[in-house]
Amino acid sequence: MELLKERIRMDGRVKEGNILKVDSFLNHQIDISLLNEIGREFKHLFDGKKITKIVTIEASGIAIACLTAQYFNVPVVFAKKAVSKNIDGDVYTSTIKSYTHGNEYTAMLEKRFLTQNDQVLILDDFLATGKAQLGLLDITKQAGATVAGIGIVIEKGFQGGGDKLRAAGYDLRSLAIIDSMENGTLCFRK
Amino acid sequence: MELLKERIRMDGRVKEGNILKVDSFLNHQIDISLLNEIGREFKHLFDGKKITKIVTIEASGIAIACLTAQYFNVPVVFAKKAVSKNIDGDVYTSTIKSYTHGNEYTAMLEKRFLTQNDQVLILDDFLATGKAQLGLLDITKQAGATVAGIGIVIEKGFQGGGDKLRAAGYDLRSLAIIDSMENGTLCFRK
Repeated sequence: MELLKERIRMDGRVKEGNILKVDSFLNHQIDISLLNEIGREFKHLFDGKKITKIVTIEASGIAIACLTAQYFNVPVVFAKKAVSKNIDGDVYTSTIKSYTHGNEYTAMLEKRFLTQNDQVLILDDFLATGKAQLGLLDITKQAGATVAGIGIVIEKGFQGGGDKLRAAGYDLRSLAIIDSMENGTLCFRK
Repeated sequence: MELLKERIRMDGRVKEGNILKVDSFLNHQIDISLLNEIGREFKHLFDGKKITKIVTIEASGIAIACLTAQYFNVPVVFAKKAVSKNIDGDVYTSTIKSYTHGNEYTAMLEKRFLTQNDQVLILDDFLATGKAQLGLLDITKQAGATVAGIGIVIEKGFQGGGDKLRAAGYDLRSLAIIDSMENGTLCFRK
């Protein structure tokens, strides 16, 4: 998606440890017009697929999932990261190791919001090693739901998670795939 | 907002400790059509006000803020709750005591995303004692930005936070105000 790549080139900042910061438009401050175009692009890429629910994980996945869901006319369910009084006992859980935060957390999703009748589109802002996506796939599998596709805004191709998911047979579409970011220079996959 | 009150009556569940669960449509599973109507209603309520940015706090505020922002054509900035590698040093912070989670956390917002030129609409899903809103007001004050208004989806009127903010002069609009929920029966303020 050219509009997105241009924006990453213009406003993205490469930090130590292969961290790409896009917090001026994607995951801290949010450019709603851009996210609407992202939603439209996901609709285009997954058009014709039967999708009953969009699944993501808090926090930055929520914005992408909600704006995209408008094009699919389906509800969003987001997995939660922390134990709270507001989570019932009857939940699917999966343990996820975070590359960004350097810790481990449990993703939780209430059982009544995902069933074997669901055809799921998994959406997220970033895919690197694929740990968060594997957690969501795990939860989807526990629910007996079908994975219709995985949509990612920015894939760090050089970290390999995306290609592993493709090799495993998932219909994974990333709007921008970064194959290297050495010395702060971003190279996008063709 | 009648549509919202009807939905709360139909799908909300009252739990011990005055907790109202609306996670089937507002803050775990998200009904995008309803949130679009909520966005339209906030636009109606704050129409004519100059607003340059919508400010909220992760996680469930993000969905409401993003769908509402479409009607105002402004960016969203959400305060983050946890320290991560992805947050720069140059941030506003405010400590917030969570009623729902029974703990204390620090809300953080990068300085470059909120300045004295901003006219802010603060949005959130719930207002009870008002602690989260006071944290966002504190951050807005640190930035020197102006608070144009505060929009809340569900206010627990009986916990008093909303009326304190109104008494302090804020233009606070809540789409549904619950004045009591004793024995599981919801009474909305007229």
